[in-house]
Amino acid sequence: MARTENTQNRKKKNNEIAVQGWEYPGEKKSKLKIIPLGGLEQIGLNMTAFEYEDSIIVVDCGLAFPGDDMLGIDLVIPDVTYLEQNLDKVKGFFITHGHEDHIGALPYVLQKIPVPVYGTKLTMAIIEGKLTEHPVPRGVKRKIVKYGQSISVGDFRVEYIRINHSIVDAASLAIFTPVGTVVHTGDFKIDHTPVFGAPADLSRFAELGKKGVLALLCESTNIFREGFTMSERTVGKTFDNIFAENQNSRIIVATFASNVDRVQQIINCACKYGRKVVVDGRSMVNIIGAAMELGYIQIPDGCLISIEELKNYPKEQTVLITTGSQGESMAALSRMAASIHRKVTICPGDTIIMSSHPIPGNEKAVARVINDLSLLGANVIFQDTHVSGHACQEEIKLMYALVKPKYAIPVHGEYRHLQAHAHLIQDLGIDSRRIFVMHSGDVLELDEDSAAICGQVPVGSVMVDGLGVGDVGNIVLRDRQTLAQHGIVIAVIVLERGSNQLLAGPDIVTRGFVYVRENEELMAEMKELVMGTVMECQDRRITDWGKIKNMIRDDLNDYLWKRMKRSPVILPIIMEA
Amino acid sequence: MARTENTQNRKKKNNEIAVQGWEYPGEKKSKLKIIPLGGLEQIGLNMTAFEYEDSIIVVDCGLAFPGDDMLGIDLVIPDVTYLEQNLDKVKGFFITHGHEDHIGALPYVLQKIPVPVYGTKLTMAIIEGKLTEHPVPRGVKRKIVKYGQSISVGDFRVEYIRINHSIVDAASLAIFTPVGTVVHTGDFKIDHTPVFGAPADLSRFAELGKKGVLALLCESTNIFREGFTMSERTVGKTFDNIFAENQNSRIIVATFASNVDRVQQIINCACKYGRKVVVDGRSMVNIIGAAMELGYIQIPDGCLISIEELKNYPKEQTVLITTGSQGESMAALSRMAASIHRKVTICPGDTIIMSSHPIPGNEKAVARVINDLSLLGANVIFQDTHVSGHACQEEIKLMYALVKPKYAIPVHGEYRHLQAHAHLIQDLGIDSRRIFVMHSGDVLELDEDSAAICGQVPVGSVMVDGLGVGDVGNIVLRDRQTLAQHGIVIAVIVLERGSNQLLAGPDIVTRGFVYVRENEELMAEMKELVMGTVMECQDRRITDWGKIKNMIRDDLNDYLWKRMKRSPVILPIIMEA
Repeated sequence: MARTENTQNRKKKNNEIAVQGWEYPGEKKSKLKIIPLGGLEQIGLNMTAFEYEDSIIVVDCGLAFPGDDMLGIDLVIPDVTYLEQNLDKVKGFFITHGHEDHIGALPYVLQKIPVPVYGTKLTMAIIEGKLTEHPVPRGVKRKIVKYGQSISVGDFRVEYIRINHSIVDAASLAIFTPVGTVVHTGDFKIDHTPVFGAPADLSRFAELGKKGVLALLCESTNIFREGFTMSERTVGKTFDNIFAENQNSRIIVATFASNVDRVQQIINCACKYGRKVVVDGRSMVNIIGAAMELGYIQIPDGCLISIEELKNYPKEQTVLITTGSQGESMAALSRMAASIHRKVTICPGDTIIMSSHPIPGNEKAVARVINDLSLLGANVIFQDTHVSGHACQEEIKLMYALVKPKYAIPVHGEYRHLQAHAHLIQDLGIDSRRIFVMHSGDVLELDEDSAAICGQVPVGSVMVDGLGVGDVGNIVLRDRQTLAQHGIVIAVIVLERGSNQLLAGPDIVTRGFVYVRENEELMAEMKELVMGTVMECQDRRITDWGKIKNMIRDDLNDYLWKRMKRSPVILPIIMEA
Repeated sequence: MARTENTQNRKKKNNEIAVQGWEYPGEKKSKLKIIPLGGLEQIGLNMTAFEYEDSIIVVDCGLAFPGDDMLGIDLVIPDVTYLEQNLDKVKGFFITHGHEDHIGALPYVLQKIPVPVYGTKLTMAIIEGKLTEHPVPRGVKRKIVKYGQSISVGDFRVEYIRINHSIVDAASLAIFTPVGTVVHTGDFKIDHTPVFGAPADLSRFAELGKKGVLALLCESTNIFREGFTMSERTVGKTFDNIFAENQNSRIIVATFASNVDRVQQIINCACKYGRKVVVDGRSMVNIIGAAMELGYIQIPDGCLISIEELKNYPKEQTVLITTGSQGESMAALSRMAASIHRKVTICPGDTIIMSSHPIPGNEKAVARVINDLSLLGANVIFQDTHVSGHACQEEIKLMYALVKPKYAIPVHGEYRHLQAHAHLIQDLGIDSRRIFVMHSGDVLELDEDSAAICGQVPVGSVMVDGLGVGDVGNIVLRDRQTLAQHGIVIAVIVLERGSNQLLAGPDIVTRGFVYVRENEELMAEMKELVMGTVMECQDRRITDWGKIKNMIRDDLNDYLWKRMKRSPVILPIIMEA
């Protein structure tokens, strides 16, 4: 186990020790706690706490995009109450890679948990970009970690291991704890022929496995896919074919901004076929800029031109690399498709490559963009133009074969993914009692001798709407849902102070209900109905405003349901004058 | 061409002639018009008019389910203004099969276009069920047509040809017109080993092709899939394996109610493994009932039990066949998943088969149901448990090889599907000038000599919300979208009649905006702001209510955007007392 590693290169620097090995002093007393603080109930909130006595480290800090029912919400971040309650224990965030579902909540969470952030070079560059836009408390330390390097904080040592993913500089983590080593794969695939950098450090996983691994947290995104995920390089071959076959037309490629290797391959094709490259879309420009600075992408001099220079070149000598492959309504490609892009007009004969698969939920938006582009006469290619960044079943099995964990904790997926993951690895001979499909907030206590879910900590998701973090809750959302369905009907009356006699109204005002000018009869009927209700209240000497409002609401509700089978929000307003 | 067919068996009966052959009298003068009246802009509104001089026939009359942006809308039907304008010409609706996207608008459209409806036995039984719920004008004739039979109306003769699809009794149509024969495939696949009935009548398609076909309207749903769609029977084999492997657990199968063959195969497995069958879900009960009456489904005596009897049998001796395979929130399976089904409680160990693929847009809803069922301990199987009802590329090519049309009109798909269809058949040697990718409302005029899109008729979609047909338009929808995003802020003031002095208010009322109790400061600030605006109006002697309202709206808008980056609907209300 991890305790047997040598102690060479140990050096203390503040609370942090960069070492190649580690020996835990004293006698092991406590158990390690592993606590998913988000993820299962809200996919994307990847955040896992590891706690041993007075030390807590956190792996990743992701955001989620709102579900269909979260009307008006911009994004969702994890509730970090547990970390706040244990703020003095928290030693740092260890980030596996630079995707939003692993880093996106940092600008919000660091406000409350101002502890150091660790990650590889590109990961930290992307985080820096975010923190420039959303400043965090001064003194929040950020540190770049290299593959093979370890960071020691509190009772933990965390080693970054090279892995492949759809973003460069992705890492798996080996977390050395007083009770044993835990491996967290992060998001991964195994690419033997990556475009940039080296293949996954399989021998390090094997070495850890040989020494003994207490637990493996392995991702589950592609658990339903058999076989192996193809190498990123295969997409390059498809691109080459498409470039060869479309030498007389402009080529526009939409892909994820963060997929630097994909962009590199597009640029390689552009150079080979003598085309100039334009990068369009804010996040694309930002990430490509960062990758260029770090030397993660190679662009020959003169290849890149600005979007303003585009008009100086014949169309067939240009390539646009753009955002919007998921049909995001504000992204560059969507604006081109809707003919509202300020610099680029789609023309018949343009070749457009959609280099991504729709993320679940985005299918219809992507289809809409493809249809709109097709209607403008473009030839849209979206088959065989993408490979996944996630491990398929055989890669997941390989990871278990190398790491040989005592306990398995499937992570990163919906419940059905985690459950299928658990089934798959039982076929590898892992006893189901050693597999833990955890819910957010579950506390798994484990050591060499045993493991069990022993408790719950507070977890949840916090909705961000504009500048408001957490000020929109379920009641507000429910109102938005009802408003969205059938709009609102407002009935206003003015009562005389003291006498409660009707001074003005009832007036009926609606929004999102029916087109008023074509439904004057309906409006008049509602007014008459409310008048009747108010008169009834006066006759029955009902003066309690709450009661009057309820009667108006009930009467209008019944009437509208019977007449139209609709249930708008009904809002009686009483003014006193 | 069609004109050469013999004239045997010709007999006139009112305006309709059931014949085996046909000869067109007189000299050909006019061109045939083919007009898609819905479909491309709103997938599901399948409806195509064929017009020759004073005769119009309409193929199918489908509804669409609302898009994400159509808040509160229940369903969408085609605008039939063109048919209304030409009511005296319209001879009938010829329905290809009983799916909603081919029959669903009939109850609404027949109110305005009360003409005969033709279809095969099950198709008409399903339509009858609909028309019982939504009565149509008396005297609207409905007629069952057999495969091979022809209906003659006006200048047209329509022959029903046996085809396979994911509902029994599906038909392709041969439409004999004075200028030639047109074949409309309807939705189809070619199943050489169907569960019920015979394989597609390929020889009839070949015969028509040999005699000469003017135009083919062929469906495009699976145009992006290579190869052949597997036979429905392959699903039966998967079911058999699942039943064999899960003999100790209850089995619940969710599938499309209309897929009678699928249900038959589940029942076959139930009988083989000695299980009782319960059918659950309103549409499932209705359609299975209709299919049983028609003898389209064979259920041995004693096999079917009611849901109330379920408790009398051991779980492992029962099968539930249910609706909800698309994650529809009100369907039986969704209610089981949410633990709100009144008769069925999901238990650990239950085996649940999702026997359908998510229709685009339903992916997340389906995933949610699977997750919820998994969380209740059920084993959910959703791989290899479904085959499509639509033709893949090789079947589509086969259809062209048999029918050999002069002109090709790809139908049933988004624009990208129709375009891909056009590309595919160019590989078959069909000249691109003979292929017409049509938009809704386009009028294609054709005869043996030429074909061209020569005009446009009014088309569109009509939204149905509750009992209202067409009373919700774009303005109302836009209001619903804004309400859904950030709710509504209402500012009410009461002014004195004549003097315009403030008598009461401003009061601020919100819905779907923020949780008021936790934002009292914000509410007070808004109140103060509006008070300031009203005072300013009085100082500046602004008495025009429209102006006052605009100033309140603008001031609140600016304030809320600056403070919160939100834009709720702002509704100033002025009362006079």
